Amino acid sequence: MGKYMYRAGIDLGGTNIKAGIVDENNQILKQASVPTRVERPYGEIIKDMAKLVLCLLDELSISKEELVGVGIGSPGTVDAETGYIAYSNNFGWENVPLVPEMKKYLDCPIRVSNDANCAALGEVKAGAAKETANAVLLTLGTGIGGGVVIDGKIFEGAHAGGAELGHTSLIMGGEPCTCGRKGCVEAYASATALIRDAKRAAGKNPQSKMNALCGGNLENMNGKIPFDAAWDGDDIAKQVVDNYITYLGEAITNFVNIFRPDVVLLSGGVCNQKEHLTDPLNAYIKNTCFAKEKAMIPPVCCAILGNSAGIIGAANLI
Amino acid sequence: MGKYMYRAGIDLGGTNIKAGIVDENNQILKQASVPTRVERPYGEIIKDMAKLVLCLLDELSISKEELVGVGIGSPGTVDAETGYIAYSNNFGWENVPLVPEMKKYLDCPIRVSNDANCAALGEVKAGAAKETANAVLLTLGTGIGGGVVIDGKIFEGAHAGGAELGHTSLIMGGEPCTCGRKGCVEAYASATALIRDAKRAAGKNPQSKMNALCGGNLENMNGKIPFDAAWDGDDIAKQVVDNYITYLGEAITNFVNIFRPDVVLLSGGVCNQKEHLTDPLNAYIKNTCFAKEKAMIPPVCCAILGNSAGIIGAANLI
Repeated sequence: MGKYMYRAGIDLGGTNIKAGIVDENNQILKQASVPTRVERPYGEIIKDMAKLVLCLLDELSISKEELVGVGIGSPGTVDAETGYIAYSNNFGWENVPLVPEMKKYLDCPIRVSNDANCAALGEVKAGAAKETANAVLLTLGTGIGGGVVIDGKIFEGAHAGGAELGHTSLIMGGEPCTCGRKGCVEAYASATALIRDAKRAAGKNPQSKMNALCGGNLENMNGKIPFDAAWDGDDIAKQVVDNYITYLGEAITNFVNIFRPDVVLLSGGVCNQKEHLTDPLNAYIKNTCFAKEKAMIPPVCCAILGNSAGIIGAANLI
Repeated sequence: MGKYMYRAGIDLGGTNIKAGIVDENNQILKQASVPTRVERPYGEIIKDMAKLVLCLLDELSISKEELVGVGIGSPGTVDAETGYIAYSNNFGWENVPLVPEMKKYLDCPIRVSNDANCAALGEVKAGAAKETANAVLLTLGTGIGGGVVIDGKIFEGAHAGGAELGHTSLIMGGEPCTCGRKGCVEAYASATALIRDAKRAAGKNPQSKMNALCGGNLENMNGKIPFDAAWDGDDIAKQVVDNYITYLGEAITNFVNIFRPDVVLLSGGVCNQKEHLTDPLNAYIKNTCFAKEKAMIPPVCCAILGNSAGIIGAANLI
C-alpha cells in the first residue's frame, strides 16, 4: 500500500453510475459517470461500475494495490452483510449479488449500503453534519430515502429492509404509497407528493397563481411553483406549502423521537427553498418532539454536498 | 469478587420499586419490592432503591464486593450517558441525578435505561427472544413503551428522548396523545386507546354485548371485554378488535421498516389474548412490510417474562 489511503465510492443511480476516488481527507480526487441503462443484465451494469473505478485509478496513476476498498451506495433493499441487493423496484432487481460480482474485477474489500444511508454518512464525514456523529437524512425526491448515522456509523436495522424511513405511517389509510400501503411519509412529504398536492389545489382553484406559473398546463407543475406562488401572496399555494411543512414536520418529529440525532438533514430540489423550508420546520418541531424543551431538539438543516454525498459516504463504508 | 457474577436489576415503576439479584444464567435468585410513593422527594425513592438491593444481598449472603453492578430500568426520558432522568411526566421528575444518587449507597458500576428498553433486553437475554439478538418490544399498557435491542444491545438513539416508539405518527392530527401531539401510535394502540374505542362503540350501540359485560356501566370497560364480546359473535366488538389489530399492525409495520428485527414482541394485559392477537397481526404485516416477501418479515409474539423482564434486562445493562 502506498503512502496515501485511496478509497473508491460509487453512487449507483437509476440514470447514472457515478464513481469517485476519495482521499483520507474525504476529498474527491477525481470523479466520472456513465449511464446506468437499468434495462441491461445486472452483470453488465456491475462490470461498468468496476471499469469506472479502474479507469479513475488509471487516470490518477494510482495502482490497484493502493486502493484500500470500494464502497457502493445502491438503491433498493440492501443486505449489507452478504452484499446482495435483495430487491430494487426501479432496477427490477431481486437477489442480485452486487458485491460478489464486483469482486470478480477488484481484489479489495467491497461494501454496499443503501444510497440514502451513504448520503447521510457523506454529510456526517464531510458535509452539513461534519461536526457531529449522529444524523438523520431525508432525501426528498421522487420518493423519500432515509439515511441514519449513529456514532459515526450507518444504522441499517438488523436485516435488509430496515431504515426505510419513508415507509412509516403519517396518515394511516391515506394517500397510496409506492410500497403498497396507504398513508406513508413518502406519500405526503416527497417532492412527488408536494407536486400532486399543488396540482390538485391549482386545478380546483383557477384563480391560484400556480396555474399561471405552470403556463396553464398543470403537467408543468414542479416543487418550486407552490413556494414561488406562496411567496407572491397566493393563499392557495400558501396552504399547499403550509400542509407540506406540517407533513414534513410531523415526519421529522417521528424520527427525532426514535433516533434523537444531533441534526436532521434534508436534501433534494425542495432544499433550494433554504430557510423558507427549514425555519418553519425548526419552529414546528420545537412544539412536537417528545418531552419538548426537556430533551435535546436537533436543528433541521439542508444537506450541502449534493451529488458528492453519495460518493463520499460510499467511500466511507471502507 | 467471588466465584459468581451477581448483578442487581431494578425496575422502577410508578407503583412499586422491584429489585432482584440476577446470576450469570439470568436467573433471578431473589426479588423484592417496596411501594414507590412517587410523591416523595426523589432522594428518598433512590435511597429505597439502594436499600432494597442491599437487603437482597444480605438475605442471599452475598457481599457488596460480589455485586458486579446495578442496572436500573426507569420510566421517562433517560440520559444513559449521564445517568440522569431528563424528564418523567408520571414521576414529576426533571433532571434527576438517578445514578449519581445511587452511587452514594453502592460502590459499583450503576447504569440506567428506559424501562421498556430493559424489558426488551430481558426478553432477548432470557425470554421470548432468547434465540435472537435483535428485537422490538412494544409494551401495551396505559401508554406504549418501545424497547429496541440490536446486536444484543439496547438501541436508545443518540440522545435522551430516542426510541420513543409510541410517540410516532399513526394518524396525523387524530386522537390526542399524552405527549401533546395528535395521532401517535400510543393514542391508537395502547390499552387505554382500546378501552376508549370500546367504550365509544358500546355507548353508541346499546345492543352490543360489551354493555352487558360492563355490567351496564361503561366505566367498567377493560381491554378484555371487546375480545370476549367479539368471540361471542358481537359485531360491534368485532369491529373494535379489528380496528385495534389494524392500528397495531400498521404500527408494527413501521417499526419493522425501521429496525427489521428478528422478532417483534408484545407485552401487557392484551397479550392474554395470545394467538387471537398475534395470528391476525402476523397475517396483517405480511402484506404491509416494505418489500413484502422479498425481505425478512419477523414474527410477532407475546413476551413471556412478565414483570421479570424489567429486572433481568436492567441487570444486563451491566
